[in-house]
Order: sequence, then structure tokens, then C-alpha cells
Amino acid sequence: MVDTVKLAVIPGDGIGPEVVGQALKALAAATEGSGVVFEQTEFSLGAARYLATGDVLTDDDLAAITGHDAILLGAVGGVPGDPRLAGANIERGLLLKLRFELDHYVNLRPSVLYPGVASPLAAPGDVDFVVVREGTEGPYVGNGGAIRVGTPAEVANEVSVNTAYGVERVVRYAFAAASARPRKKLTLVHKTNVLVFAGSLWKRTVDAVAAEFPGVTADYLHVDAATIFLVTDPARFDVIVTDNLFGDILTDLAGAISGGIGLAASGNINPDGRFPSMFEPVHGSAPDIAGQGVADPTAAILSVALLLDHLGRAEAAQKVQRAVVADIAERGDTRRSTSEVGDAIAARIGA
Amino acid sequence: MVDTVKLAVIPGDGIGPEVVGQALKALAAATEGSGVVFEQTEFSLGAARYLATGDVLTDDDLAAITGHDAILLGAVGGVPGDPRLAGANIERGLLLKLRFELDHYVNLRPSVLYPGVASPLAAPGDVDFVVVREGTEGPYVGNGGAIRVGTPAEVANEVSVNTAYGVERVVRYAFAAASARPRKKLTLVHKTNVLVFAGSLWKRTVDAVAAEFPGVTADYLHVDAATIFLVTDPARFDVIVTDNLFGDILTDLAGAISGGIGLAASGNINPDGRFPSMFEPVHGSAPDIAGQGVADPTAAILSVALLLDHLGRAEAAQKVQRAVVADIAERGDTRRSTSEVGDAIAARIGA
Ligand SMILES: CC(C)[C@H](C(=O)O)[C@@H](O)C(=O)O
Ligand SMILES: CC(C)[C@H](C(=O)O)[C@@H](O)C(=O)O
Repeated sequence: MVDTVKLAVIPGDGIGPEVVGQALKALAAATEGSGVVFEQTEFSLGAARYLATGDVLTDDDLAAITGHDAILLGAVGGVPGDPRLAGANIERGLLLKLRFELDHYVNLRPSVLYPGVASPLAAPGDVDFVVVREGTEGPYVGNGGAIRVGTPAEVANEVSVNTAYGVERVVRYAFAAASARPRKKLTLVHKTNVLVFAGSLWKRTVDAVAAEFPGVTADYLHVDAATIFLVTDPARFDVIVTDNLFGDILTDLAGAISGGIGLAASGNINPDGRFPSMFEPVHGSAPDIAGQGVADPTAAILSVALLLDHLGRAEAAQKVQRAVVADIAERGDTRRSTSEVGDAIAARIGA
Repeated sequence: MVDTVKLAVIPGDGIGPEVVGQALKALAAATEGSGVVFEQTEFSLGAARYLATGDVLTDDDLAAITGHDAILLGAVGGVPGDPRLAGANIERGLLLKLRFELDHYVNLRPSVLYPGVASPLAAPGDVDFVVVREGTEGPYVGNGGAIRVGTPAEVANEVSVNTAYGVERVVRYAFAAASARPRKKLTLVHKTNVLVFAGSLWKRTVDAVAAEFPGVTADYLHVDAATIFLVTDPARFDVIVTDNLFGDILTDLAGAISGGIGLAASGNINPDGRFPSMFEPVHGSAPDIAGQGVADPTAAILSVALLLDHLGRAEAAQKVQRAVVADIAERGDTRRSTSEVGDAIAARIGA
């Protein structure tokens, strides 16, 4: 019996198409002969599409993507400062729109310092944690506004919206993730002493859900203190659960200390399965190095492992993961092209 | 002629009184015979006062403090989780209240990796930058609320308020600071691609004020990217200007990479001089090590250097600064008590 998975592929801009090409190679190698076939539809979205047509994400695009089982995204975004993009906000109009419309309430970002990878930290220790970042609320909701724009009396507000509904589901997901890990530790990161209303909701929710997971040890850190520990003792973390904005900040820092965002994978997950989940490297479109075949496809390939895992293909996910780890361990300082890295990893997967 | 400076001293809780004691020693040593006399009034404020009287900061306290020329604060905050403090928010009710009421719109936080200080970074380079954190707006305004608290339908909002008035004055201060430094570089940190209204105001303001400072090079980083550079290339920064919350996060991280927040000093400044400015170490009250005489008073002493500088006593400020740098350089791994460190620095100042 052959299962068919309908995969929407959004290569995007800059280095996006290059790294997605290698990620698809890894996907093919990992699932060959496994009885699952990935039926791919490519969507041309991002800055290039906007410049060509004026569209960021049409209702038709969204409906078509929603009809798929999963999404693989490279990176979107044009050259910073390109005046032709001044009127568009590709990040909000495309990336965040997909996360919100497809109810990706879990933004899953593992941070592992793999053997052989250099960290900017002198003594990083055994870094292996995952950030469960809320994906559909907080300061990201787009609930802001401004008056008297451009005058000395301008006021610009941004509202962080947090609901029991939204916080509880992501906190429960994080506890379940923690209870499935050996250390069973969960750290809530927020700023409860300043953002007292949102902070209180998050804190009370963690305390309440903790009662359902007696095997998990839960603690709390202010976001400012969390950044200190991420550089002085990152090994202390196991599962971090946090809001959308704090998660954005912490995961870039986490990526940096565990070898660079060139290695950081992420899943935008709708755990209910009502909508397709979306997997993407944490890095951006890096227009400065696009088209040169030098981008590191590792984060995109690791995102394929997260995708396979999400689809219940744990064995194939493991194959990808192991191949990447083995490749990384032997990397040293050799400079390889994007496709050389992709080929090497695909070959290991197939071996 | 003898000048008199009326100094309000708020030792606070935990290690606050211990480090303030050493800071005052340094102040005395640095100003001895200089023709300036610091007339000190001590204010008993913080968790201990709250527990004793139920007051956090009365109108009378505030009026009395406002009558001073400057404020030296140790640290405030009780033991985390103390049930008797559950009803009080000392941070909001005291520390933030002082910053807001005294219009401390510049929160100045220098980050210097002094010779002899170990950084958690393997190759930190020449770290010497200052964060100009906005102090009276943003997500710190306390403009939040919640409905249906404790029910599954709870909604908790936090509003970040940003005004042209508030942004422009701190941005202008930051440009002036940058133009007085050798590298003359300013980096705006925000999240313009997501917080589009506030981000746009900050970005337009920096662009506008940049025109008045043609000698200063200005650039922009998203806050998530800024955390990456803080661990991969902190030497790139000269002056960072950012909002209240991003500044809170970045300065703890900056403190950590430049040797720990035990060395991080800060000034809450009202540049207009309408209200007294307040100087405090970035660290907290550390109740776990309070009363043992082991707290490092260096950050409090460096805060005295910022205080002297603010009062136009550049020479005395330099004395403190130089004594601290010399002490740090010879510190090695010897464990000294709080007063031993304070005595050593005071002796160097007097030498
Ligand atoms: C591009 C941007 C909108 C996005 C975010 O802030 O979430 C990115 O930084 C990320 O972390 O995926
Ligand atoms: C104690 C807290 C309210 C404060 C802040 O968030 O500003 C502290 O973290 C700081 O940075 O001075």
C-alpha cells in the first residue's frame, strides 16, 4: 500500500529555492521504498512573486495550500531596503499570515549543539533543548495602530493579545513534549513583573497544567534572565515555553549559541491536524549570498526531519537526523557548495 | 566654595544595602577635597519596608525623593515566591514608578569587557558599547488589562505605547552620545517587520534625527538578529538605541557577555534635569546571597561613576572608573568579601 502525502512547497526568495532543493533530495532519499509518496505542488510566493504580480498571498493561494497535508518553506523576503518592496510587508502578509490562518499555534524550535559544531560560547556544555514558541497570539497579532502619523504628536500602539484558549493549548503541548524527554523539565519564560496581565495568565496556566503532569519539573524565568542563562549555562534548559515575541528573540539567540541559525530548523505546527503544518529553516532569505550555491542547506534538511516526525514517519525522520549529525561531525572547515552538502547528506540517508 | 549635592540613597533589599555601602565609600574617596559635598538622605524602600508598613512608595516618599539632586539605588525585591509579597509588585510599584514619575527617559547601560574579565564567549573581541534604552514608554507603560480572569474565556492584553515625543527625545540623546564616541555608530534595534506601527515610528524618527548628525553612521537590526550579533560579534556595536522591553532584554544579555551583571552599571536619566536621575546596578537584590558579605559591589561602584559623570564631575567619575578597571585587572580568582572589594577600590581612588 502506498500512502500519498500532499506537500506544498514554497521555495521563496534568495537562498530559499537553493536550500529547499536539497531538502527535497533528503526527503526523497529518506522515504524511498518506504511506502509513502510525496506529491509536491510548488507555490511561487515571496518578494519575487510580489514584484511580478503585486500579490503577496491571494485567497486562492491560501485555499490551495490549505488543501495540502504539509508545507515545506525555504525563506521569503527581498533585498532589505529595495524601494519596490516598501509598500509590501512580505513577513506579515505571507509568513505570519500562513502561521495565523493555518492556526500554527506551536512554533517548535529545537536547539542542539551537535558534535563537531563550534559554538561562540567558550564552554557551552551539553546543549539540547527545544523552544515551544506560541505562534498565533501575543504582540504578533497585528493589533496595533497609530494616530497623527508623521507629526510631533504621533502615537503608535501595539497590543499583545493573550487568551486562556491560546495559552493553555500551547502550554499543554509543551508539557507533553517535556514529559516525553528524558529530563522532563519545563521553563516558562515571560516578563511577569512588568507585563502583569499577560504574565499572570501565562503563569497561572503553567501552574494549572503542571498539576496534570506531575512527572515534569516546571520553573520560571524572566526573559531578560533567560538570555543570561542561554550564554552562561544553556545546558540547564530542556523545554522552554514562551510567547510569540519572546520566542522569536530566544530562538535566534539559541540558534546562535548552538552553531548558528544555518543549522536551526523549525516547525509551525497545528497539532489538531485541522490545517497543514509548515516546516522551515529559522534563517532568512539571505539575498546577499543568493544564487551563488554557497548557502548551507542543513537547517532546511533538518526541517524535513521535523516534517517527517510530524507526519508520523519517525523512522524516516531519524534517518535524516542521523545523516545530518554524521555529516556535521565530519564537516571540519571544508567549504562545500549547497548541493555538495545536500548530496552528501542524501547519500548517507540512502546508505 | 563648596557645592552641595543632595543625594537620595535607596539601599533597598537583599544585597542592596551591602553594595550601596561600598558605592558610598567610593563616592567619598572620589570627591574628597574636590569642593563637592554629598548630603545624603536614606530612604527605606523595598520589600522590607512593604512587609513592615504595607507601603511601596507613598506620595510623601516620592515628593521627598524628588527634592534631591540625584538618587543612588542598590536593589529592590524580596525573596521570590514569598507569599507575603504576593499582593505587592515592588518592581512596578517602586522601581518602575520612580523611572516613570521622574521621567527617566534614558536608561543608559554601558557594556565594556574590561581587561582581565572572563566572558562566556570564546572570542568576544573588543566589547565597548552602550545601550540607550527608552525608559518611559513601550510595553512598560502598564497599559494592560484582562477580562474573565480565571475562566477559559480569559483575555489578557498589554499595550505598548510609543509617542513621537518620547521616541524622538531618546533617539536624539542616543545620536548625541554616538557623536561623542570615537566610532560614531548608532544601531536602532526594534522589530519593524512585525510591530509595524511602533517600528515605523522608531525607524522614521531615527532616519529624521540622523540628518542632524551627519557624522554618525546609523543602521538597523531586528531584535532577534541583534541577539545573534551580541554573541557572535559584540564588538560591532557602539551605541544601541531601543525601546524599553528590547532594552531590558538586550542589556541583560550584554551584561552577561561582558563579564556578568555583577559588573553592569546603569543610569536612569532625566536629561532635562527637571527631575533627579537615578543610578543603580543592573543586578537584582539576590536574596540568596544577602547578608553574607559576598556580593560584588563593582556594579554599584561603577554606577557612582555614571552618577558623577551625570553631575558634571567628569574628573571624579574618571577616578572611580580607573580604580575599578585597575582592581578588576588584578582580581584573578581570589575571593574577596564585599567590603574588601570596596576598600580596595576606595584605596585606589584615594591613591
Ligand atoms: C520574519 C519574521 C516575521 C519571523 C518572526 O518574527 O517570527 C522570523 O524572525 C522568525 O523567527 O521566523
Ligand atoms: C526589575 C525589572 C522591573 C527591571 C526592568 O525590567 O526594567 C529590571 O529587569 C531592569 O532591567 O532594571
